[in-house]
Parts: sequence; structure tokens; C-alpha cells
Amino acid sequence: MIPLSHIELEQDKHVLIAYLNRPSKANALNRGLWFELETLAKWVDENPKIRALVLAAKGKHFSSGIDFSLIQEMSTLFHSKPKGYRQEWLYHEIRKLQNAFTALEHCSKPILAAIHGSCIGGAIDLICACDMRYATEESRFCIKEIDLAIVADIGTIQRLPTIIGEGLAREYTMTAEVFSGSQAKDMKLVNRSYPSQQEMMEDVRRIAHTIASKSPLSIRNTKRTFVYGRDHSIQAGLEQVARLNAGILFSEDSTEVMTAMMQKRPPTFSDH
Amino acid sequence: MIPLSHIELEQDKHVLIAYLNRPSKANALNRGLWFELETLAKWVDENPKIRALVLAAKGKHFSSGIDFSLIQEMSTLFHSKPKGYRQEWLYHEIRKLQNAFTALEHCSKPILAAIHGSCIGGAIDLICACDMRYATEESRFCIKEIDLAIVADIGTIQRLPTIIGEGLAREYTMTAEVFSGSQAKDMKLVNRSYPSQQEMMEDVRRIAHTIASKSPLSIRNTKRTFVYGRDHSIQAGLEQVARLNAGILFSEDSTEVMTAMMQKRPPTFSDH
Amino acid sequence: MIPLSHIELEQDKHVLIAYLNRPSKANALNRGLWFELETLAKWVDENPKIRALVLAAKGKHFSSGIDFSLIQEMSTLFHSKPKGYRQEWLYHEIRKLQNAFTALEHCSKPILAAIHGSCIGGAIDLICACDMRYATEESRFCIKEIDLAIVADIGTIQRLPTIIGEGLAREYTMTAEVFSGSQAKDMKLVNRSYPSQQEMMEDVRRIAHTIASKSPLSIRNTKRTFVYGRDHSIQAGLEQVARLNAGILFSEDSTEVMTAMMQKRPPTFSDH
Amino acid sequence: MIPLSHIELEQDKHVLIAYLNRPSKANALNRGLWFELETLAKWVDENPKIRALVLAAKGKHFSSGIDFSLIQEMSTLFHSKPKGYRQEWLYHEIRKLQNAFTALEHCSKPILAAIHGSCIGGAIDLICACDMRYATEESRFCIKEIDLAIVADIGTIQRLPTIIGEGLAREYTMTAEVFSGSQAKDMKLVNRSYPSQQEMMEDVRRIAHTIASKSPLSIRNTKRTFVYGRDHSIQAGLEQVARLNAGILFSEDSTEVMTAMMQKRPPTFSDH
Amino acid sequence: MIPLSHIELEQDKHVLIAYLNRPSKANALNRGLWFELETLAKWVDENPKIRALVLAAKGKHFSSGIDFSLIQEMSTLFHSKPKGYRQEWLYHEIRKLQNAFTALEHCSKPILAAIHGSCIGGAIDLICACDMRYATEESRFCIKEIDLAIVADIGTIQRLPTIIGEGLAREYTMTAEVFSGSQAKDMKLVNRSYPSQQEMMEDVRRIAHTIASKSPLSIRNTKRTFVYGRDHSIQAGLEQVARLNAGILFSEDSTEVMTAMMQKRPPTFSDH
Amino acid sequence: MIPLSHIELEQDKHVLIAYLNRPSKANALNRGLWFELETLAKWVDENPKIRALVLAAKGKHFSSGIDFSLIQEMSTLFHSKPKGYRQEWLYHEIRKLQNAFTALEHCSKPILAAIHGSCIGGAIDLICACDMRYATEESRFCIKEIDLAIVADIGTIQRLPTIIGEGLAREYTMTAEVFSGSQAKDMKLVNRSYPSQQEMMEDVRRIAHTIASKSPLSIRNTKRTFVYGRDHSIQAGLEQVARLNAGILFSEDSTEVMTAMMQKRPPTFSDH
Repeated sequence: MIPLSHIELEQDKHVLIAYLNRPSKANALNRGLWFELETLAKWVDENPKIRALVLAAKGKHFSSGIDFSLIQEMSTLFHSKPKGYRQEWLYHEIRKLQNAFTALEHCSKPILAAIHGSCIGGAIDLICACDMRYATEESRFCIKEIDLAIVADIGTIQRLPTIIGEGLAREYTMTAEVFSGSQAKDMKLVNRSYPSQQEMMEDVRRIAHTIASKSPLSIRNTKRTFVYGRDHSIQAGLEQVARLNAGILFSEDSTEVMTAMMQKRPPTFSDH
Repeated sequence: MIPLSHIELEQDKHVLIAYLNRPSKANALNRGLWFELETLAKWVDENPKIRALVLAAKGKHFSSGIDFSLIQEMSTLFHSKPKGYRQEWLYHEIRKLQNAFTALEHCSKPILAAIHGSCIGGAIDLICACDMRYATEESRFCIKEIDLAIVADIGTIQRLPTIIGEGLAREYTMTAEVFSGSQAKDMKLVNRSYPSQQEMMEDVRRIAHTIASKSPLSIRNTKRTFVYGRDHSIQAGLEQVARLNAGILFSEDSTEVMTAMMQKRPPTFSDH
Repeated sequence: MIPLSHIELEQDKHVLIAYLNRPSKANALNRGLWFELETLAKWVDENPKIRALVLAAKGKHFSSGIDFSLIQEMSTLFHSKPKGYRQEWLYHEIRKLQNAFTALEHCSKPILAAIHGSCIGGAIDLICACDMRYATEESRFCIKEIDLAIVADIGTIQRLPTIIGEGLAREYTMTAEVFSGSQAKDMKLVNRSYPSQQEMMEDVRRIAHTIASKSPLSIRNTKRTFVYGRDHSIQAGLEQVARLNAGILFSEDSTEVMTAMMQKRPPTFSDH
Repeated sequence: MIPLSHIELEQDKHVLIAYLNRPSKANALNRGLWFELETLAKWVDENPKIRALVLAAKGKHFSSGIDFSLIQEMSTLFHSKPKGYRQEWLYHEIRKLQNAFTALEHCSKPILAAIHGSCIGGAIDLICACDMRYATEESRFCIKEIDLAIVADIGTIQRLPTIIGEGLAREYTMTAEVFSGSQAKDMKLVNRSYPSQQEMMEDVRRIAHTIASKSPLSIRNTKRTFVYGRDHSIQAGLEQVARLNAGILFSEDSTEVMTAMMQKRPPTFSDH
Repeated sequence: MIPLSHIELEQDKHVLIAYLNRPSKANALNRGLWFELETLAKWVDENPKIRALVLAAKGKHFSSGIDFSLIQEMSTLFHSKPKGYRQEWLYHEIRKLQNAFTALEHCSKPILAAIHGSCIGGAIDLICACDMRYATEESRFCIKEIDLAIVADIGTIQRLPTIIGEGLAREYTMTAEVFSGSQAKDMKLVNRSYPSQQEMMEDVRRIAHTIASKSPLSIRNTKRTFVYGRDHSIQAGLEQVARLNAGILFSEDSTEVMTAMMQKRPPTFSDH
Repeated sequence: MIPLSHIELEQDKHVLIAYLNRPSKANALNRGLWFELETLAKWVDENPKIRALVLAAKGKHFSSGIDFSLIQEMSTLFHSKPKGYRQEWLYHEIRKLQNAFTALEHCSKPILAAIHGSCIGGAIDLICACDMRYATEESRFCIKEIDLAIVADIGTIQRLPTIIGEGLAREYTMTAEVFSGSQAKDMKLVNRSYPSQQEMMEDVRRIAHTIASKSPLSIRNTKRTFVYGRDHSIQAGLEQVARLNAGILFSEDSTEVMTAMMQKRPPTFSDH
């Protein structure tokens, strides 16, 4: 298992549960935690034993968003540069922060975010880069950046409208108003909401195990096809999936499915 | 009327009702039925007597999706090719299957899918290529491909997120979980759900006839504008519709509307 | 204050309320009103005193849509041109009408539409170019163009599916069926619906004032980022916001936020 | 061999020479010849015996462009339609004419145009849809459409700038000035120019046979990659060719190349 | 005739010759001249009497590029803004400067630049926004921005590679090396080069009059099609020109062409 | 200096000369050399002491292209995978090979390729990812992939047409015909050609030093703007460079330029 300082890992057969683990700081995203998420995503992508990743949190809150230490560190470095060079430097710093979360999107294994307590600011950028989201009814969401005089720049503005539509996305981003897990369910930010954290974790595990029981080759290429499709025209998406499937359609996994069907047993897939 | 083997047609004034008609096979999409859908869509596009198409089904189910015979036939042909040539061949086969359903999207007459019983796998690709969808509350949907170790490749992954949003689209595609017509209504996959097939058919006919009572010139260019708009930027879409309307805005149909208004009668449009 | 004939303005601190003001004509959009909306949007964009714009209406209805006088005027001019030159002329006329509403989208201050009574045809194009929409439960919406044998060409077909999804957008555009403010809320066309116009106006003012209390630099660039993001891929959107934020991240506004936080008072931002 | 009325075919091993064959009409493109070009391109695409196509002409001229009979026929039909429906009809007619030449671009076998005498108007649209062009020094080119008060609409304006650059493309399209094969060579419209038709035909045959001696699988996918690449970003093009090559890289053709290399003989490829 | 301070106009039948006219300043582009170019382009676009525009210069040089007064003015204003607001302000200033030159591209009448003497920095951005360029052999070009520690930002980097290819464009932009009109001809930046200014002006007038003798409806839509085509895929360009031509193909201009042909006289077109 | 095994480095003030250094193998690109190019490009990007990179070669040839060992290794690994997983694996392998060369494009310092002897196959993909190319007249180029039954997949097909136009690019890619440095100059693949390697190296050094004498901030953002512009519409490119320049226009470098101008000395820029 990959050694991480701010994330606790629990392998549950083919499902990996990753817990944000800075509970004393409400899992604020400091530099360490931020980039460990990227490390984790890349490692999961390469590791054939893992077929689905659940992103959850230790302590009372999912995450309070970006840690002030990270903003302060950036501010200090920014002001240490010659004035004409600051924007170029800052552009690349922001790109690195963005790339860390985009790594979750590029990780070919589906990622399910399980949210309880508070999910604030940068944490919303984070969950928008996941494939699916689940929350306790009592959880509290806030797109907080505007209260810090910041344009949310790690993906919320880009990805949220494809999840909940343009209307509410703009309102909540511009008001920083708090909304609950139940409201998040109604607006489709999360797929399901639950009375308790325990019930949520059980159901999210169930969904993750369901996904992990499918052909891993097909699951990861399904995810890739969703990510590609969202950013391209219907025609371009159809061409891409036809090209992709031409390479993998009649695989060992499809043979196993047929055999299992005839033998009336669930299929089992090897780890590649 | 165009002769078709697997589809039964019923002309109801300017509305054509097309019933998938392999009830003994739960309307499984074999090669014949698959490509008759393309033939039908192209014929409807050219036929000025038809202003709206309802796609419904005979028997207990809308459709159980792709027929195994079609997969087996493709598998046999695939393995008969020299290895290095298989992927190129398969790419073009998948493109042909996709193009058949895309023909429904390119058909300039609106297509309303009316769904009862089961609607599985390839049948979901099919209804996503329609303009609007309606279902009985009891109907059952399943994005089944992943259970066959297949990446859904006929349009579901590309079109579904524009209908229901990214979150639920990814979950149901990766779990192959069954959901009902009522749930489909809640997630906006279908526009309306009904207690019975009869009530659904009556209401869908009513909607289709409403559409058929409008200027056919305007209806088909409205559809074209939706299809174009979905795949282009807002600005490109606005340019396209301005160019298009510059050609058809002050037509015989708009004169008829004005005349009818003054004569306090419903307008009637001729078939072009 | 900019002098306008068909729009009444009310400045409420940093919020501007603009009322469509042709109540005797149900606020039908004649040429004057149509292009005053563009003038208003550009003026608001340049005016640092205004941080949010509420678009509401005097009289019984929000707006009955395009005024017949405008269509007739266009028709007369169209038929006065040599035949071969008509389409080119009309294309540019439609582009001008589109550009007037697009000016609301390009105005960097958020625009909140508050709708009561009827909101018909061109008025739906108008509210789709706003950032957020609110309505009374009793209000009545109708995408009326098809009844005039017109393809809706001022933005509804392009923008509506990003707000409510493809399915319902196509149905209501093709049937011209009326729907209420409550239904508009359910389908996400409006963010919230209210029992009375007064309650709506109070709440929309509250939301607008909340937005106006935030860093104006960040609010307007948040809006720009939404508009850019909707029309570009996720990656392109992320690059744009990184480039944009590199220029404005450590601004006077962010300093004020920090100071205010330490002084336990709300931040106040100057007008630039 | 496919039967064609206006095109004469000569099979020379794996190379097909197609001669425009209306010499008494200077190979003017009437409806018959126009759509036979599409038929030919689709047949060549499907026929494994043909690996390269040379497009040349019988008589004194390559082609004088669109035949007046075709314009007159379109004009007559256009004016027979109700006014409001004319533009919609004409749009689709033009699209069909365009699609006929685009079929040459979509034909996976390389197409070499060999031009002598005059090459006028629609004939330039035609050769721009080919992969490479060759001409006699004395040949004469003219982008004639503007002299007929027509915007060139079959591909010249779209494809020419990618061949010769923006500057000269705009001048010659707007002046309809005549230029010679030698000038065409200088501006890169044709790859090579020749003192006589015989020398041209011999050299073009030689180039075509060179291409036909290569792996046909690789040649046709090279063409597809050029066509795709021209219309997409560098990154999108790289993704496409990686996906494509993942399916065909280690093919029977590459084995044959290796074997032939070791046996010091030219490789021979079978027809698939 | 529109009154301009820094540009001298000469109407020569349907051709307008506009001379940059700050000869004592080597036609340096100060704010006045810069935005008069935009005013001119928009006026030419609207004025049916003008069918082609020649852009030339009074004095010894075409133009020495941006005037220092303009840079200094921008610098002063920039530094007068609060720090966090400077980049936003400057972005919009640059956009306005760009838009002024883009107005030449959006002007539907062809613009021919006739260059003698020096053509430096911003003047190259200017001529790249024209349709065609001509120069004396002795003229001297220099993409000067890099010597002022500026990234060329008014269009050279975007438009030059479509005119001369990527290789030379990057070199001359990064070295600020001077090249002559003859070299500009070899690299295709200019279409033709001439021994003297007088010969150039005569030939450019001839070309402009040739263009002005064609159907003005077709000429301006040909230009629009080039501009659209350069920025879109081949398919999108073909759709656009089909839609456009559907509106204007059988115009009074095409009737006039036919009549003139039969009467063996040159066609004459009215001014619309 | 970064330690590399297959590349020899020579620092010449702000210019770095990197020599491909496997002369006994004609600088064939084995895995080591291939990925050292990526390492080098990323290191140069980060190293403020280097302002321009010259890519040249030791021994008789620039490079004979991909080393057979690399193809064999890929073939072995490919065949060791389960059949259904091979294409997915190979896709990612090709992407890694592509990304290595794309790193040269993403390196913000200009890269000048100096070519002598042979430049074959993969070496052409390599030089197309550089900014500018120079060659000896006697050098020999060959787009060799088709002779190995391979579709060129590392960038040649995507980038070459933007350098030399569509016509010749397709011919030379499909025939694998050899062409000389002089011909490469005529077709604009290389910017200049030279009688001897020594003269070439001297002149390329001169050009590189010229570039290195400019504002490094402006040079690297000029390169970025070219790369961005090539893949986006003119409008998108203009927006990007306006945003970028808003951050860096009035920098220390521009102050230094002004000061140096007044002091009549060349400007000197510090290393950031």
C-alpha cells in the first residue's frame, strides 16, 4: 500500500476506501493533503487490485476546504517574485493545484465521494472531480470561495453546471449560501442522501462493490468514455468509443461473462 | 407505406406510430430490427405527410436490448478476419450500428419514445437518440452493457448526461442497477410517467398531435436547431439559427398563422 | 442614471432593479424596449456602483414576448429588399436582436430575473440570458414561437437545455404548452418559486444584496468564468480561470477580507 | 468493375485510373458525372483490390467545372417550391453536392488528381478534396464561381487555405484570375508540374504504384489520420492516432515487412 | 464620406483607397489612428458604394507600428489603478485594441494592404487582419514586439501561421529580424512584390477593381466564408456555406450574370 | 547540469546545445534516448539560465529514427498481455511516447533543430515538435514509417501540414520518398539550409543567441501563445494572449528595455 501521511487507506477486497485524515483541522486541504490526493489517484489508476475508490473522511467533517497555510504560503511566494513575473508563476501554481484534482478525473477507476459534516470551498472542487457523490442528509455544503474574494478556480465552476444545471450553480457560487445534503440530493449534486453516516458508508460500499464486481476493463473504459464525451460533441464521442471498443470488445472478460452465464454463476475477472 | 418486417406502422393523420414488433423476443434488437429503425427514420425524414413519429412497442416490453444473435454474428465475423485487420473492421461495424440510431437524431421530425415493460441496454441507446421520452410508472430501465463486459457504445454515454446530468448517468451505467419509470421521471430521463400503458399512449398521441398541428417547416428546423445547439457553443448556435431563420422566417406558414389568427380558426399547413 | 423610456430603474444601494415598463402592452418587447435592454446591460457593465441587476416588471405580466410591431416592421423591410439580398439582410437583423440579449450574458454583473404573470416567447429568450431566474408560483410560461411558425432564434434553444436538460426543453419548445412557476421550479428553469410577487421581490432583493456584499472583482470574474466554462471543455475552462486568477488573486479585496475577518466585521469593498 | 457512364476506369494492378469522360463537353460536371464520382469513391473505399486512385481526364481538359444543365435544373426546382420552403430545399441540395466530393476525402484510399488543360470552378472543389494534385505546366486553373455571382460552396474556400495558405487563396477566389500549372506548383496547389501530359501520367502512376506497394492497412489509416488531424487540435489528433494504432500496430503487415527485410525481398501484402 | 483625422480617403469608383496619414510620425499608430481604422472598417462594411478597400500609406513608410504615446498612456492608466484591478482593466484595454483590427476582418468588403517603406510591429498585426497583402521589393518588415519585451498580442501570432506556416512565423517573431518585401513574397506574407511603389499601387488598384467588378453580394459572402472556414472544421465550414448560399444563390446578381453573358457585355451590379 | 546518458550538453551562455549522442547507432531513438528528450525538455523549461535550446547531433547523422530494440520490446510486451487488454496497454504506451515529444512543445523555451546527415521516421516526429528547423543542403529526410507498415503516430501527421501544407505532407508520408535539406527548405520544413554542417551550426547558434538576448519572460510567453494559437480559433487565441499579457505587459523587462534604449545600450535581463 502506498504510504500517505494525510490519508488513511482501507482495502476492502477490490474497493479502496480513502479517508481524508486531518480530523483536528476539519480535514482542511493543506499542501500535503492536496497533493497526496493526486498521488493516490495516480497510484489507484496503475494498481490492478483496485477497481473502485471511495473517498470519505475521518472526524466530524468531510473537509473545510483549502487550508489557510496553503494560501499564505502562496501569497508569500507570490510577493517574493519580481512584479512582472508574479502572474506567470501564479498561473502555473494554480494549474498544479487544478491538475491534482484532475488526476481524480483521469484515474480510470470510478471514484465515489461519501460526504458527512461540512464540505466547503475547495472540497466542492474536489467532489466535483469525482464520478458520483453521496451525502448524509445533515451534511452542509458551501461554495465558500467568494467570501474570500476568490473566483473558485479548481473546477467547481467548470464541472458543477454539468451536474446540477446552470441556474443553481451560479446562485450558490455567488452567494456562498449553505445547503444541506438533502438539498444537494434534490439538485442532483449527490446521487443519494442518507439519515446517518453509517447508513451512507454501508450503501456507498455496496455500490462500490457492485461496480468492482463488473469487468474492470469495461468499467475503466466506461469512465474514460464519460470524461471524453462530456468535453466533445456527440459525434466525436461516438467515434472515440467505437475506436476504443474495436480494441476491447471481444476480450477475455466478455468470454468469462458468457461462460459464467451458461454455468449460472457470477463472473469473476482477473486483475489487469 | 414503407414495408418493414420487424416494425408495425400505424398512420394517425400526421402522426406515425411505429411499434417495435418482435414481441416473442421481447423486441430484442436483431440486425433486421436495428437497421429497419434507420430505414424508418430516413423515410420519415423525407415523407412530408409525417410530422411526428411515436416509437412504441408491441407485447410486454419496449425492448430487451441487443439480440444475442447480433453479438454472436459480429463475434464470428471478427474472429474470421486476419488479426491485424479485426479492429479496423470492428470500428466500422460499430459506426454502422451507431449511425442507425443517429439517423433518428438526424430525422427532422420529432420522435417521441413511449416505453412500457422493460427497456434494457441497447434500447436505452435508442431512446436517448429520440427527442423526448415517456414511460409507464411500472416500466423498468437497465443500462445493462456493463454486465456483458461491454462499454455502452451506441450513444447512451454521450447523450444521457445532457438529459439527466453527469452524476446519476455514471452511477447507473456502472452498476447496471434497475430503475423504474417513476424514477426515470424524477431524474428527467422521461418527461412524464403514467399509471398505465393506455394512458401513456393516449397522452403521447396527444402531444404528438399537438406538435403535428404546428408549422411543419418550423418544427423540423426547431429540431435541427436543438441538435446543432447541443454540440456547439452558444455563439455558434446563435449564428446557425440566425442563418437558418433568414431563409424561412417569412414563409407561407407564417402567413397562414396570421390569416388564421385574424379569421379566428386554427391554422392548417400544407405538406412540404 | 441612464435615461431609458421603456425601463424604470430603482437603485437600491449596490443593487439596481430594472422594471420592464410597458404595462399597458403587457411589456411586449418592441424595438425600443428590446434595444434598451442592451443599452442597460452595457451601462451596468461599465458602472462600478452597480454590483447586481434585478430584472423585474411593472404591471400584471413580466412580458408577453416580442411585440407584433417589431415583426411587422421586419417583414416590411424584408419585402422591400431585392429578393437575393433579403436573407443576408435578415440574418444581420436577427444577429442584432440576439446580440441585444447576449449583452446581458456579457454584462459582468450578475442578473437575476424576477418573473410574475406571463412570460412568453421572446421573454423566455430574455430570461435564459440572465444568470438566475425566480418566479411566483402562479406565473405562466410559454415558449410561444412555434405557434407563430417561427423557430425560436434569440437563445432559448441554445441556452435552455443547459438549464433544464434536453428532454423537457424540446417538448415545451415544440408544443408551446403553458407551464406554471411551480413547474418551472421543478424543472429548474427558476431557482425558487414564491406564493406572491411581494415575497418574490423581497427574496430576490435579499439574494441580490448578498451578492452585492461580496468582492465585486471576484463576482464579475466568477460570472465570466461561468459563461466561458459553459462553452468550452473542462480543460480550456480550467486554463482560462487559472490565467484570470493569476491576475487578480491577491487583490485589495482579498486583503480587505482578511482584515475584516481579524477585526470581526463584515468586509466592505470599494467601487472599481 | 463498377459500371459508370461518365467515367472510364483502367485497373493497373493495385492502382485504379479513373478518367473523367465527357470530352465533348470539356468534362463539365453534370449531375450524372458529379454523383458517379461519389459512387466511385465509395466503391473504391470498399474494394480491397484497389490501393490508390488516380483521377485524370479524357480529352483536352481536366474539367470545365459545373455543367450549366445542373445549375438550370436546380434553379427550376428551386423556383417550383413554395417561397418559404426554397432555402431549406436548396440547403439540402447543396449538402448533397458537397457530400459527393467529401466522399473522396472519406474514401480511405489515397486519391491523386492528374490535371491537364483547363481546371475550372467546381473542378477545383473536386481536386481540393483529393489527397495530392499534379499538373502539366501548361494547364490552366480558374476559381470561376465569383464570375457566376456564386460563393464557391463545394469545398474550395474551406480546403484551399490548408493547401496554399490564406493570402493567395483569397485573391484567386475573389478575382477569378487564371493561373498556370507552373504557378500552381509554386503556390503548392499541385505537388509537381510536368512539361507534358504523358510525363505527368507516367510520374503520377509511378507515385501511385509506390503507394500501392506499401501496407494497405497502414496507408488507409494514414489517410484517415491526416483527414482527422486537419480538423482537430494536435492533442485530439494524437489521441486518435494512438487509439487507432493500438488496434493495428502489430499486424500481419508488420510481420510481412520484417520477414521480407530479413529475406531481402520487397514485402507483399494481401488484399483486405 | 466619413470624416477622419489620421486617414485620407480617395474614392475611385467602387474602390476606396485609405491612406494612413501621419507621415511626419512614420504613420505610427497612436490611439486616434488605431481606432479610426475600426471606424473606417465598420463604415465600409455598411456602405454599399464601396466594394473593396485598399489600405496604403502616405509618406515614406507604411507604418512604424504602435506609437509610444499609446503605450505610455496605457502604462500611466495601468499604474493608476488599484493593484488587484490592473490586470482586469488591462485585459479589456487589449481586447479593445484587438477588436479594432478584428473589425477589418469582420468588414465584409475585401481589404488589400499595399505596403512600402517600413512595416513594423503593430503594423504587421494590422496587415495580417487584411485579406491580401502586396509590397514593394524594397519594403522592410519587422515583427518588433519582442524588442520591447512584449508578446505580440494584436493578432500576428494567431494569424501569421495561417498565411506563411508555423516555421518562419515563430523565427521572425522571436528574433525581430528584418526581412524585405521580396522575402515576404517568397514566404507568402504578401501575394506579389513590385519594383516601385507606383507599380504596386497601379497593380493593387487593378486587383481591387477586378474584385469590385464582381457581384458584391457574392464577394462579401465569399469573404465571410473564408473567415468562418479558417476557424472551423471543414464540415462546419461546408454546412455554413450551404446555409448561406441557400439564401443568396439565385439572386438578382446571378440573373444579371446570365443576361450579360447572353448579351455579350460585362455584368453590372447595383449597390446593396 | 542534468546528467544524461544519450545526450551531450554544451552550455553556451544562455543557449543550451543538446547533441543526440549515440553516433555508433546513427542516433537511433532507443527507449533511453527517447525519454531523456522528455527529461531534458522539462528541465530546460524549469531552468532560468537557459533561454533557448538547440537540438543537434553527434556523428554522421541527425537520427535514423526509432531504434528497433524499442519496437521489439513493445511487441514482446504487447504479446505477453491477455488479448483483450493489449490495445488498452498499447494505447497508453503510444501516448507516453507521444508525450515525450510533446514535452518539447510544452517547454516554454524555443527549440531549434539543426539537422545534418539522415533524419528518418521518428526523428521527423521529433523535429516537428520543435519550434524551428534548419538543415544542411545535403541532409536527407525520409518519413519512413509506412515502410514498416506503421501509421506515423508520434506527431508528424498532426504537425507537418501546419508547417508545409497538406499537399506535400500527404505525398511524402505515403511514399516514404527521400528528400534533401534543400528541398526541405523549398517546402518550408526547414527555415534555412546551409552548404555545410559548420555553417549551419554557426548560424543556428547566432539565431539562438539572438533569441536569448530578448526578454526571457516575453520569449517564453510568445512560444506559449504560438502553441495555443495553432490549436484554437483566432478569437480564442486573441482572448488568451490578452489575458496573458494583462499579467506581464508592464514588467521589469519592459522597464529595462526603456532604460536601455535611453542609455543607448543593449538591454540585459535577469534570469527568472
